[in-house]
Amino acid sequence: MALIVAKFGGTSVASPERIKNVARRLVRMRQDGHSVVAVVSAMGKTTDELMGLASAVSSQPPARELDRLLSTGEQVSMTLLAMALENLGYRALSFTGRQAGIETDSSHRQAKIIKVHNERIMEALEAGAIPVVAGFQGIDAAGDITTLGRGGSDTTAVAVAWGIGADVCEIYSDVDGVYTTDPRVAPRAQKLDQISYDDMLELSSAGSGVLQSRAVEFARKWNVVIHSRSAFSDAEGTYIKEDPDMEEAVITGIAHDTSEVKVTMRHLPDTSGVAAKVFSALASNMVNTDMIIQNISEDGYTDISFTCPGADLDRARETLDRIMPDLGGREYVVDESIAKVSLVGTGMKSSPGVAARAFTTLGENNINILAISTSPIRLSMVVDAAQAAQAVRCLHTAFGLDSDSVFVETQLSAEEIAAKMKKGR
Amino acid sequence: MALIVAKFGGTSVASPERIKNVARRLVRMRQDGHSVVAVVSAMGKTTDELMGLASAVSSQPPARELDRLLSTGEQVSMTLLAMALENLGYRALSFTGRQAGIETDSSHRQAKIIKVHNERIMEALEAGAIPVVAGFQGIDAAGDITTLGRGGSDTTAVAVAWGIGADVCEIYSDVDGVYTTDPRVAPRAQKLDQISYDDMLELSSAGSGVLQSRAVEFARKWNVVIHSRSAFSDAEGTYIKEDPDMEEAVITGIAHDTSEVKVTMRHLPDTSGVAAKVFSALASNMVNTDMIIQNISEDGYTDISFTCPGADLDRARETLDRIMPDLGGREYVVDESIAKVSLVGTGMKSSPGVAARAFTTLGENNINILAISTSPIRLSMVVDAAQAAQAVRCLHTAFGLDSDSVFVETQLSAEEIAAKMKKGR
Repeated sequence: MALIVAKFGGTSVASPERIKNVARRLVRMRQDGHSVVAVVSAMGKTTDELMGLASAVSSQPPARELDRLLSTGEQVSMTLLAMALENLGYRALSFTGRQAGIETDSSHRQAKIIKVHNERIMEALEAGAIPVVAGFQGIDAAGDITTLGRGGSDTTAVAVAWGIGADVCEIYSDVDGVYTTDPRVAPRAQKLDQISYDDMLELSSAGSGVLQSRAVEFARKWNVVIHSRSAFSDAEGTYIKEDPDMEEAVITGIAHDTSEVKVTMRHLPDTSGVAAKVFSALASNMVNTDMIIQNISEDGYTDISFTCPGADLDRARETLDRIMPDLGGREYVVDESIAKVSLVGTGMKSSPGVAARAFTTLGENNINILAISTSPIRLSMVVDAAQAAQAVRCLHTAFGLDSDSVFVETQLSAEEIAAKMKKGR
Repeated sequence: MALIVAKFGGTSVASPERIKNVARRLVRMRQDGHSVVAVVSAMGKTTDELMGLASAVSSQPPARELDRLLSTGEQVSMTLLAMALENLGYRALSFTGRQAGIETDSSHRQAKIIKVHNERIMEALEAGAIPVVAGFQGIDAAGDITTLGRGGSDTTAVAVAWGIGADVCEIYSDVDGVYTTDPRVAPRAQKLDQISYDDMLELSSAGSGVLQSRAVEFARKWNVVIHSRSAFSDAEGTYIKEDPDMEEAVITGIAHDTSEVKVTMRHLPDTSGVAAKVFSALASNMVNTDMIIQNISEDGYTDISFTCPGADLDRARETLDRIMPDLGGREYVVDESIAKVSLVGTGMKSSPGVAARAFTTLGENNINILAISTSPIRLSMVVDAAQAAQAVRCLHTAFGLDSDSVFVETQLSAEEIAAKMKKGR
């Protein structure tokens, strides 16, 4: 007799047949006595297709119009799901972001949710209907449609769950939960029954594609329990929640991320202020630098390396082409074949030997560490991309995460795995 | 320095390239010193595709959800056009039906416009922006999205033109105006410079696909001047307006319509009330009967024929299968290969010889008339579909409508002509 918010991603609603499956699943929840609110993403690749149309008519689509355009994707899937539910004999009412009361700030393309006005959803629930809410979108104070950025439907689901006081926010996707690491890379990966918000946040931002960081942040802030589970099976997934009784594992999971690149500036004069000039120029050109490594100075010159998302590389090149001559640097080189491997675990705070064990493990496996960064509950190491899978596997074994059974991927087609890999990048 | 509403149909906005053409055209109007409001249909076949998705998830899609689904089509084209305008350096603001203040009744799928709240469009115009309005949609008193039925974007354009007091409502399409008859059927057809609302209404409802009847009705009621013209050339088209100085042609134009079918019920008892029972049963099953022909009674039995839209044929069969046994009729036969040819002209009211000349002309050409119906300014005759084109041509000549020049279709591809023929049906 729970109040459940159930969010279905683009893959789960990619075709009329899949939408009918989602409808049947929601009906089963109702038959089990639960109250349920659905949140949906746009069908399959709709958002990318709409972006393509926008680029075809405008070199720089205005943000207000772009958000209105993109928001139609979820409006299509929400109405189709409502129709499918009514076709099964259940009353359903679809709600746009505006109608669902998702109030955001005015930063188009990446708006932040300010408030959730729950009245219309509550009324629909009280009338016995199944509300179906369009994910990814809201409305600002001026009445303009905004969108929440990539993966924003997860955030909508968590926000709605908070707004209506739901018992759980179930996030359905093509994976059946959160694993100690990517099972396609390390077949002995284990599915976690539960994980803390902090560990999940670090895993998400370190490259685990299961949940969007912003949704997890929102859930942590408002204490919303997330249940990440498969849209294609009934198995329990992973609960993301705060649990004082939870035993703090030293290492909860290992994430990897191949989307970053490494840039090395050669032979820069080692004078005060050079690094500051470089990184403030990069920042003001919207390059998100991650790790920074400065070599020991020789003869008054030094090399400085940094890593950044591959998507920022063009802007990084543009910045360096502009400032390197003034700074007196010799050249810069780009290495695109790197991978970041991250160990995550709240227990790390009280276990000082983690870094030593990780370095030793990689050393014994002849894997060279190119850069290191840490947070209180995360240790990230950059390695050569060709050695990333091996690094994940040997660390997974060294930290006692291996399962007795070997993961066999059965539910996804080769095409779907490829899509996931790409999304994970 | 006119205030112009310019409506572009689905063909004119079918691709990003065509949307950019529309944007350039609107910019030219602005450069000529005019104020302009654009109204757009959904891109190409979008509405049909959305209908297909709806039928795939539901056998009977609920009207409220269906309208919300269909309305996304125009929201895509309106945002893309606004982006294309901004890309040319002009400020543009897109408006959904709701935002444009199109208030309708609550008959989903075929809502009627009750009121146009012009404030937001006027504000945008005063701010120097080009408002781009989504056609085909409005909002009812409960705040739910409604749609205006097929061709509803024409009606939106006329309503907006009335709401803001525009000088003219330009309706751009893939034909360059209103012709005395379909130039593909009769190459000597002439483009009309202007036509009265009454004649245009009769032509539209008799099968001329240039403008939707409802839009013309609305324009007549509120005295909105329509200019029907080509989206692909700068040539003047046809003005639809009331003009006291206009010479009333006996025959303004000839329309034909091959979308109707003829049903003949055989050997019905010729007793009072039989016809009433048949046609009230048909009406209550949503069959729109057009012409009715009853033969002279023989031995107390008679045949009754009627014509109706081909789209209503399944419901007509269902009705007759149910009631024929009770009525004692023998059988019914369906003739799908008929065509209705209609002469239209306000001057017909004061020229009694029209019917005689029409019948004589068809007789001389060995064309058999299967049924006849009339209004004060229209004479419709049903003929065999195979003879329809010949009937149009010989009537066009007989009533002095032939042009000296022969129409050569240059701007449309074979595919586009096929699409037009299909739409005309």
